[in-house]
Amino acid sequence: MTTSREVHLKSRPVGMPKPDNFEVKSVDVPAPGPGEVQVQNLFMSVDPYMRGRMMDRKSYAAPFNLGEAMYGGAVGKVVASNDPSLKQGDLVQSMMGWREVFNAPAKSVQKLPGVGLPPQAFLGVAGMPGLTAYVGLLRIAELKADDVVFVSAASGAVGQIVAQIAKIKGNRVIGSAGGAEKCAFLKEIGVDEVIDYKAEADITKALIRAAPDGIDVYFDNVGGAHLDAALAAAKPFGRFALCGMIASYNAVEKADPVYNMMFSVGKSLKLQGFIVSNHSDMLPAFLGDMSKWLAEGKIKTRETIDEGIDNAAGAFLKLFTGDNFGKMLVKLA
Amino acid sequence: MTTSREVHLKSRPVGMPKPDNFEVKSVDVPAPGPGEVQVQNLFMSVDPYMRGRMMDRKSYAAPFNLGEAMYGGAVGKVVASNDPSLKQGDLVQSMMGWREVFNAPAKSVQKLPGVGLPPQAFLGVAGMPGLTAYVGLLRIAELKADDVVFVSAASGAVGQIVAQIAKIKGNRVIGSAGGAEKCAFLKEIGVDEVIDYKAEADITKALIRAAPDGIDVYFDNVGGAHLDAALAAAKPFGRFALCGMIASYNAVEKADPVYNMMFSVGKSLKLQGFIVSNHSDMLPAFLGDMSKWLAEGKIKTRETIDEGIDNAAGAFLKLFTGDNFGKMLVKLA
Repeated sequence: MTTSREVHLKSRPVGMPKPDNFEVKSVDVPAPGPGEVQVQNLFMSVDPYMRGRMMDRKSYAAPFNLGEAMYGGAVGKVVASNDPSLKQGDLVQSMMGWREVFNAPAKSVQKLPGVGLPPQAFLGVAGMPGLTAYVGLLRIAELKADDVVFVSAASGAVGQIVAQIAKIKGNRVIGSAGGAEKCAFLKEIGVDEVIDYKAEADITKALIRAAPDGIDVYFDNVGGAHLDAALAAAKPFGRFALCGMIASYNAVEKADPVYNMMFSVGKSLKLQGFIVSNHSDMLPAFLGDMSKWLAEGKIKTRETIDEGIDNAAGAFLKLFTGDNFGKMLVKLA
Repeated sequence: MTTSREVHLKSRPVGMPKPDNFEVKSVDVPAPGPGEVQVQNLFMSVDPYMRGRMMDRKSYAAPFNLGEAMYGGAVGKVVASNDPSLKQGDLVQSMMGWREVFNAPAKSVQKLPGVGLPPQAFLGVAGMPGLTAYVGLLRIAELKADDVVFVSAASGAVGQIVAQIAKIKGNRVIGSAGGAEKCAFLKEIGVDEVIDYKAEADITKALIRAAPDGIDVYFDNVGGAHLDAALAAAKPFGRFALCGMIASYNAVEKADPVYNMMFSVGKSLKLQGFIVSNHSDMLPAFLGDMSKWLAEGKIKTRETIDEGIDNAAGAFLKLFTGDNFGKMLVKLA
């Protein structure tokens, strides 16, 4: 019998989540049953989309239940196996984050491919955030040669990959981030024009200064004033991949308003939201391209790693205050 | 020498246009030169998109010049011809509205097809508004069998055609309009659920009541709270044709805000603006279908006709107060 600790949703957050919406509980984990493995998580992911699951409403993802452990992306090591498909020491990926140790059917976890990447890369650049960037830029925004690309939250887990894929493809890239350190990182990864949104009174003016001839593609991670800026700066037939709107995830009544939707008529813009799980057909192409780009040193990544299950909720909260930098992870072992 | 009267833009409107932004001027029209025809306009169109041309800004359409006659769709009769391609009495369509009589190169006007429709139909159901409905619904919103369709300003020039094409295709249609008379007309043309937006405190609640299982397609002529309602009520993978946002055409500083764009991410919505002139490849198919539907009595239309060039500016202003009903026309002869 092993003891694990896991993070429960204690109460549903209203507005910005607070530490006391969460609690850490100890549970006993028996030996794995037939067909099961026991996994010790090495890293778990915290992602903005999880905020939506904390609300009790119909959405593309079922809500977390109160008084139960939450879940999400994690990578871990098999510590005991009762199934021939996996053996002790195998590294696996699962949706069983927010806990230290768990039992699960062997077929519900995925063995990590041995491509020489650290395991936590499969929660970031080589995982869901990376695939999100790839799908959004190449399929949803239909990236073309000579497109000028704007990406918001460009130092974030998804944004930093968007920016670098666009640079690999030879596009001009404008990125926004908050603060000098994140903006310096954007310059380092080759972003052509950097907007420090915390230092700008008017993001629209800053974007038009950065892209006086307009933008063709906008990869939206923020919504609100960033989306307004992109609508104002878009060229005719611009394409927007709507990936997330973190500015509004904690809105209690109304989200950040958008005033410039009228530009989408006159400029024939296409704005398209997407959920990466509907585009898993692109995973093989993504893994092929991304392994090559990583091997060639063409993609740099930044991550923030907090340690221990007791700090998992705090790591999640950092996503909304901008206190993380790049992919936010929690190291569990 | 003939005398014509024409409407000039005297000053650029700020906010809601006022009668004194316009003035009627008399001009002399000489005999048509070589290759030219002289046309007496029978009807001219006033359309919401003209509001944009009254502003001096870069857009898909060049702005009207101050102190010159405005222009727009018109149908008229050739009264003198100096070109073999057209003869006296021919009915033609042109972009030379806002005036009574004009000379123009014969090749710059289009002879109306003899399909048994009254000439003003080519400014409405069989013209630009009809084609706009057809393109927006079938190409931009990719209408499919079983789609639930919501159209705003559904009694308007474009909206009434959208609603009826969708009914012909067998779809369930929800339409919004302002006031009992317009709503009664929507029932008459087969709209399944009618929302009188002037009688509803909350358009979102009204739409969810009308479409408890959600909408698949939204044809937006209004923007603002109507767009928010459609975002809230949309099913996953909903498609929005953004055709116009009349709620915001006269905004001085900021347009009507939209708060619900975040739904476009979670529900993988596609919102696409369009300008009908970029889709003229669909004109033959449209004219084929529309002639058939009109001949079969499947399309009813409502229009408001004001008389005389002196009332043209007033007719235009009615578009923004809702005092028109259906296609707004000015009869000039």
